Amino acid sequence: MSRERLYLYDTTLRDGAQTTGVDFSLEDKRTIANLLDKVGVDYVEGGYPGANPLDTKFFAEKPIANAKFAAFGMTKRAGRSASNDPGIAALLDAKADAICFVAKASEYHVHVALETTTEENLAGIRESVEAARERGREVLLDCEHFFDGYKANRDYALACVKTAYESGARWVVLCDTNGGTMPHEVAAIVTDVGKIVPGSHLGIHAHDDCGCAVANSLAAIEAGARHIQGTLNGLGERCGNANLVTLIGALKLKDQYSERFDLGVSDEALSQLTHMSRQVDEVLNRQPNRHAPFVGASAFATKAGIHASAVLKDPRTYEHVEPEAVGNVRKVLVSDQGGQSNVLFELKRLGFALEKGDARISRVLEEVKRKEAEGFAFEGADASFYVLVKRMLGEVPAFFQVERFSVNVERRYNAIGELVMASEAIVKVRVGDEVLISAAEGNGPVNALDVALRKDLGKYQDLIQDLELTDYKVRIYQGGSDAVTRVLIEFTDGDGESWTTIGVSPNIIDASFQALTDSIVYKLLRSGAEL
Amino acid sequence: MSRERLYLYDTTLRDGAQTTGVDFSLEDKRTIANLLDKVGVDYVEGGYPGANPLDTKFFAEKPIANAKFAAFGMTKRAGRSASNDPGIAALLDAKADAICFVAKASEYHVHVALETTTEENLAGIRESVEAARERGREVLLDCEHFFDGYKANRDYALACVKTAYESGARWVVLCDTNGGTMPHEVAAIVTDVGKIVPGSHLGIHAHDDCGCAVANSLAAIEAGARHIQGTLNGLGERCGNANLVTLIGALKLKDQYSERFDLGVSDEALSQLTHMSRQVDEVLNRQPNRHAPFVGASAFATKAGIHASAVLKDPRTYEHVEPEAVGNVRKVLVSDQGGQSNVLFELKRLGFALEKGDARISRVLEEVKRKEAEGFAFEGADASFYVLVKRMLGEVPAFFQVERFSVNVERRYNAIGELVMASEAIVKVRVGDEVLISAAEGNGPVNALDVALRKDLGKYQDLIQDLELTDYKVRIYQGGSDAVTRVLIEFTDGDGESWTTIGVSPNIIDASFQALTDSIVYKLLRSGAEL
Repeated sequence: MSRERLYLYDTTLRDGAQTTGVDFSLEDKRTIANLLDKVGVDYVEGGYPGANPLDTKFFAEKPIANAKFAAFGMTKRAGRSASNDPGIAALLDAKADAICFVAKASEYHVHVALETTTEENLAGIRESVEAARERGREVLLDCEHFFDGYKANRDYALACVKTAYESGARWVVLCDTNGGTMPHEVAAIVTDVGKIVPGSHLGIHAHDDCGCAVANSLAAIEAGARHIQGTLNGLGERCGNANLVTLIGALKLKDQYSERFDLGVSDEALSQLTHMSRQVDEVLNRQPNRHAPFVGASAFATKAGIHASAVLKDPRTYEHVEPEAVGNVRKVLVSDQGGQSNVLFELKRLGFALEKGDARISRVLEEVKRKEAEGFAFEGADASFYVLVKRMLGEVPAFFQVERFSVNVERRYNAIGELVMASEAIVKVRVGDEVLISAAEGNGPVNALDVALRKDLGKYQDLIQDLELTDYKVRIYQGGSDAVTRVLIEFTDGDGESWTTIGVSPNIIDASFQALTDSIVYKLLRSGAEL
Repeated sequence: MSRERLYLYDTTLRDGAQTTGVDFSLEDKRTIANLLDKVGVDYVEGGYPGANPLDTKFFAEKPIANAKFAAFGMTKRAGRSASNDPGIAALLDAKADAICFVAKASEYHVHVALETTTEENLAGIRESVEAARERGREVLLDCEHFFDGYKANRDYALACVKTAYESGARWVVLCDTNGGTMPHEVAAIVTDVGKIVPGSHLGIHAHDDCGCAVANSLAAIEAGARHIQGTLNGLGERCGNANLVTLIGALKLKDQYSERFDLGVSDEALSQLTHMSRQVDEVLNRQPNRHAPFVGASAFATKAGIHASAVLKDPRTYEHVEPEAVGNVRKVLVSDQGGQSNVLFELKRLGFALEKGDARISRVLEEVKRKEAEGFAFEGADASFYVLVKRMLGEVPAFFQVERFSVNVERRYNAIGELVMASEAIVKVRVGDEVLISAAEGNGPVNALDVALRKDLGKYQDLIQDLELTDYKVRIYQGGSDAVTRVLIEFTDGDGESWTTIGVSPNIIDASFQALTDSIVYKLLRSGAEL
């Protein structure tokens, strides 16, 4: 059976930036664009060049190799020509493969929000699409408020769609901007639009205000649309956009879709879906949603005893797809079977020569469970997991012992009345027979502690000289009744290797200190340092 | 037009108890049952009497006045009669109005999980339903794995449905137990089942493993089913059950449903939906989902400036329903993405009497932009925004001035060789002519600083006595070349009001201190404190 191609358009970096609390830096944008490119989406919408300096800068060069890089912006303003509109100029100057214009497709919005005429709005669509086509860009047109507009004035909404298509837009995208349209309505309306524009040129852009963004996207596909817009982890304004991660899981793994449709996402990329979803949360310092379809930590977790025993007989009894397909893992809370193989997998990956059945594997698993109950999370802290296992195997020499540290932060007015902040740390460490005491100042307590700790480690000093603290993350974790602080620290050495360690404590300084010492021990172990 | 009745069946206390990390006490169960009763659901499933002592106890008396109280349990075991099965006896002994039996409706599961015959399974359904009917109970039958069973062996799945209906079950409930069925399949299969059992006796029980639980429930209704099972806030195993809160919002507020269907939920109860949803999270000590449809804190929050100005003209431009209908509130986020309209809206909401065009509005916007460039983010820190504006308007008295603070954290071995951590803070503050110095210990530096700062504020002490630090969040923000720490602190006072403040600094202690002092100033301003 010949399969049709479905096209994925990611708008995490534009519509996803509207999420409450999300604030991308330029570096965040680059990281996420590259993640998306690896996943295999067809379009990465980078932002709105011209609307703010960050987005303009992001469009100064194309940051990705494979996907089309798309710039978003409004159609030309009423009362001026496209060639004389600074917004259009900024879009045409952007280093983008495609331009996605947004235009109202609702008579009500044309009058109330734009305060212009329906004819002027159609002219804006036509002239903007043509201007971008003349400059050799692929053009998309987001029909904002399309579904609400259609229900209020079908003819006008369809006129917008028709104008965009006839002016040469590659994709005409039907937007449920307010997220209030229900799946059966989407199905009926997209079917109707299909009489004017072929489905191979129709896209869907859904919002989750009724918890139906994924279903609305699927309904549009069933009705003929072949282009889907969404965001990673369903980021977006209000309740978020259609979750592309969920859609990729369903479209790749459900027979009724995979038999009919091809995606740009390979099976190998699919197996990184869980990892990729969590990396996005990591970049944004958000708590991953445990219950997210396909990729949540609980998505394949079985709690009921009766279900667990069936899952052990045959996982298909309570799993709609195999967790491995999306890089997730099965969790059966009454048994460590699933857990042991994960641990074994991780141990092998880190170079430990343990075989299945080795009693030390279940000891490691027990220790990991104990530590995770305290608030540790080793998934993002490989190096701490490595140090933990080495320690359990008795393979960590007592390189150094910290006998004492103290950190002091002070804020006061100095003699001439200026407000000054000072942070200093003292670390006393024993290396073999040597006792070394170092003091340092820093721009904050963790920086001061890091500098003091690594100022003089005696004979190991050469090995840690070139370390650099490259990332520091903090999260408050509700462990039982009390909150604990979870600190993740990333170090990079002179060879460009980087690793992450974790520390957990009610005291943020103590948690940071644990992560700092783990990092040094890790580096010494990897360097083959000896006592 | 005459409307049909839809029946809501809540299983928060049974299927919702399978959520990772959820563990109901008897008191929790009573609280939630009463909440559900007030909302107006038709059935409250309390648990599985006989399966554990807690549930048996919960069924010793009926805890609710209006809804039907339902007990859940398996059909009789193979090889014994219903009258001789202790599981059935426990269900019949429970003080329940209705009994919901669960039985496999999939040939594969009958063989693999139950290890019995298809005939024996049908006999179990028939005899269990009859036994409960004889004792005067209303009976429901959950057809477990119905959709997967139907796709593998339609005849057997339908035989289970038919047997249950003909034995006298009031409702035959079609369960998508593994959550892998897609909306168009649910529509087709429920339509087919409708040829055997009238829709007025058919129910749907959906799981969210493909992000489609709400849509699947709605698809079943479109196909004729009139009974919907779900949980509050979508609690449940793996990715959760169909979210009844979302379903209530959609069914009550969307014309295409409300014109056709009646629910037991009144408009007044609907206006408590947000409150009720958050109370459930409160009981379970979970963080409410900001992005939840209808009831999330961000469900009606607008960030983009261009959207905000439209919302201010007419909220319907970007809202699919009125937030007031579900007891939620509109929010226009103040951020550098937003424009003057956002700021004006927020200023009005916070009680400032500024009008459009006032030059001070653009000064506030400039200041917000300047602070956000430094790493501030006011959209999650209302109280700091309030203090900022009051300060710009010259309306913040110099209540107190912190002349100096110092914080010390030490880790060392004590005299008997134990590792000890100590955190202490000293704060020197001037209140009018008084100079006050306070010291305190804490479980970490921020806690010590908070306790010391609020130990003695002289004449203001009474006003801040009942404050409690209820949340603390940290994020590292890459502001330009250097990383800064962004701290958000939430306080609650004795009246139950809570507010959030923000601090930004390269130094985490300093950032925390800014947020702490903002919180105190906010409280003093709101209390009308004077110099």
